[in-house]
Amino acid sequence: MLEELKQDVLQANMSLVKYGLVVLTWGNVSGIDRNKNLVVIKPSGVDYDKLTIDNLVVVDLSGKVVEGDKRPSSDTPMHIELYKAFKEIGGITHTHSNYATMFAQACKEIPCLGTTHADHFYGSIPLTRFLTKAEVEEAYELNTGKIIIERFKDLNPISTPGVLVAGHAPLAFGKNAADSVRNSLILERVAEMALGTYHINRNVEKLPDYISEKHYQRKHGPDAYYGQKK
Amino acid sequence: MLEELKQDVLQANMSLVKYGLVVLTWGNVSGIDRNKNLVVIKPSGVDYDKLTIDNLVVVDLSGKVVEGDKRPSSDTPMHIELYKAFKEIGGITHTHSNYATMFAQACKEIPCLGTTHADHFYGSIPLTRFLTKAEVEEAYELNTGKIIIERFKDLNPISTPGVLVAGHAPLAFGKNAADSVRNSLILERVAEMALGTYHINRNVEKLPDYISEKHYQRKHGPDAYYGQKK
Amino acid sequence: MLEELKQDVLQANMSLVKYGLVVLTWGNVSGIDRNKNLVVIKPSGVDYDKLTIDNLVVVDLSGKVVEGDKRPSSDTPMHIELYKAFKEIGGITHTHSNYATMFAQACKEIPCLGTTHADHFYGSIPLTRFLTKAEVEEAYELNTGKIIIERFKDLNPISTPGVLVAGHAPLAFGKNAADSVRNSLILERVAEMALGTYHINRNVEKLPDYISEKHYQRKHGPDAYYGQKK
Amino acid sequence: MLEELKQDVLQANMSLVKYGLVVLTWGNVSGIDRNKNLVVIKPSGVDYDKLTIDNLVVVDLSGKVVEGDKRPSSDTPMHIELYKAFKEIGGITHTHSNYATMFAQACKEIPCLGTTHADHFYGSIPLTRFLTKAEVEEAYELNTGKIIIERFKDLNPISTPGVLVAGHAPLAFGKNAADSVRNSLILERVAEMALGTYHINRNVEKLPDYISEKHYQRKHGPDAYYGQKK
Repeated sequence: MLEELKQDVLQANMSLVKYGLVVLTWGNVSGIDRNKNLVVIKPSGVDYDKLTIDNLVVVDLSGKVVEGDKRPSSDTPMHIELYKAFKEIGGITHTHSNYATMFAQACKEIPCLGTTHADHFYGSIPLTRFLTKAEVEEAYELNTGKIIIERFKDLNPISTPGVLVAGHAPLAFGKNAADSVRNSLILERVAEMALGTYHINRNVEKLPDYISEKHYQRKHGPDAYYGQKK
Repeated sequence: MLEELKQDVLQANMSLVKYGLVVLTWGNVSGIDRNKNLVVIKPSGVDYDKLTIDNLVVVDLSGKVVEGDKRPSSDTPMHIELYKAFKEIGGITHTHSNYATMFAQACKEIPCLGTTHADHFYGSIPLTRFLTKAEVEEAYELNTGKIIIERFKDLNPISTPGVLVAGHAPLAFGKNAADSVRNSLILERVAEMALGTYHINRNVEKLPDYISEKHYQRKHGPDAYYGQKK
Repeated sequence: MLEELKQDVLQANMSLVKYGLVVLTWGNVSGIDRNKNLVVIKPSGVDYDKLTIDNLVVVDLSGKVVEGDKRPSSDTPMHIELYKAFKEIGGITHTHSNYATMFAQACKEIPCLGTTHADHFYGSIPLTRFLTKAEVEEAYELNTGKIIIERFKDLNPISTPGVLVAGHAPLAFGKNAADSVRNSLILERVAEMALGTYHINRNVEKLPDYISEKHYQRKHGPDAYYGQKK
Repeated sequence: MLEELKQDVLQANMSLVKYGLVVLTWGNVSGIDRNKNLVVIKPSGVDYDKLTIDNLVVVDLSGKVVEGDKRPSSDTPMHIELYKAFKEIGGITHTHSNYATMFAQACKEIPCLGTTHADHFYGSIPLTRFLTKAEVEEAYELNTGKIIIERFKDLNPISTPGVLVAGHAPLAFGKNAADSVRNSLILERVAEMALGTYHINRNVEKLPDYISEKHYQRKHGPDAYYGQKK
């Protein structure tokens, strides 16, 4: 069942280790089959070096396990909520990567300070609010999904493919599982560069809009000319 | 004698190198057999690439070497003192890992700034006081154990499985040797993230209690639902 | 066609990965054959692990593709503009390497703070101005080349073989492709050291001129005595 | 000639790469045969991956090349001057390692902030003054040796086995070549920890003397009990 998607999700999870985005079990990647409305996700608390295609878990959009012996990631309700709200995305990566987590803990959005950022993220990397006590008690992971969706009211998860959850860590979105890992890596590097930039110049201003706009459009706009023709 | 425990302690010591938690001989891991009241510990000053199962040392709770040709770690009296006071623990890891040591040297506890911390450590990562001159002269390593125990008067070494010794470096505890290494790695990463968080926002406040409580309980509480069923 | 140059440019591009100067597709190296006035350059948006000698692109100094199935790097007009202005150089490396990019984003030149810098870069590492809106709209990459040339009005790209483009990232020059990568690595390390130096001492002053002069001359001056006789 | 010493010096030079203490050609290790008064040293400007036992250079204490086709390191006069003044040492390592170089560039000594430092360096890591213009012009490398010796007027290069040359980079000493590399690594790690410690607590005070004294003595004093019996 869903062999190709499972293979993608497995590879995507393993690439988190290769890119240094996770240690221990601090992360998970999922992918969705939009025709069947089924999500493949990492099992909860399983070390990456013990992860195989057979212990990935398939869930439907109600959260019910459709295939697999393991419990799915405890963050599954959040993933599902995001897939339901963001129809454009096909993959989600959640990590506690070092630098992006520092900004999440510091409760600071990451403004666009340079073209590396502008090439990949349209505008600032957004930050959610904190969950309320009632939201935590009612349904923690599900409501984490909801406050992300709330923050994206005026944002597009394809052009701004990542978010910082206040006091927690980053998530990244993508057209598929691999693409969401790629955006997770970009977010981490952009965060690291932002931290260093503030170190050198505490009062740095964001990149002029006409430059960030140009960089985003040359990669992702209707007349994009970066990369090879598809 | 104690072949299985020795194997665990050897692997745990070697994983310090793999995780980048030690260079040279700056660290040691021990494990205890609670039935026999015997501790297996790294020999003193032996490089990790020369460490074999045969040069591990077995000591009893009076500190007497029961098996092994080598001198045990000079920190052995501290390990024994901790095993005697903390009945719940089965392993201890001492390192001079980079970021945790920075906080120990700066004499600052690490407050819970995010869910990465909350997932693993209940409350702040505690800091001991300095030893007095008399304590240093009387029995340095033994008294280092004693000031840790003093600091844990109202703390549980399983739910707060690590400590910073003022001016020195971190220790981590665990259910066994491998678990204490794992907590040592977590402490190091939490320290690194805390340093960066303060860099971005010097006035950051600790995570709201209801979020840190939730995170700790979902992993370690009576109704924990993170990970696989045991 | 140009097999030797292609081999050099391929190796130079791959060494960016080895030195940790790029992730994903964030960089490109080119080399020029000064007799034929042809430039070999990385194709646009191709991952380094898929780069082969066959997908390198050959362009002439008008920007026309002379050989290759792929689109050349979108930065090609900038490379060409620089080769036309700086006759002494044979290779150009553009990366978004971490520390150099921090300084570019912070819009700060890197003064000569020590002999590591003085050994390789004569004077400060220069910073361009921002492009104007009109320049961005007219010909972004070409005009990026032009503002670098403007900044080098009184500088020599062999003795000061690198530049920070404001809000963007570094470029490095060299006698050939490999040499430009080498200078790219040096620029990155010099930037990292400068960041840390300012951390320790915000008011540090640049190295006395007579020391930086000595270091540059002993490596690159007419009586240079560093290294082996050629 | 001196095959054993050459093998030691070769291994010591190569371990600089393994420990991440050098990139490119930014470092050199030498060792001395005290009976023959001959020094084995790295050739100048040779990349580490091209270094073999056959291109090491043997010089006498007047600086004359006794064996070898290559030019010796341009820092050879400094090494010789130090061997003549510090009779106790058998090896010298010079690097531009990241963190130690930051302190050298910032012109700040590294006070003893914790037991990692105290275990290996007695007192602060000293800093030289800058060379004068006349000293640079007269004999740059030789006089660099002389200002180190001047700084060690009341210091012992075995108990304080390293130094920061103002505006330049660190040197480390040892009983032999390998030991000097080990001290070079320790100096680098101590510098990194010091930088982070100041980051967390700008006003941190040095470790109480009775603790640093204890740590140094338990490793190096007449009643040392760290490590195995020799």
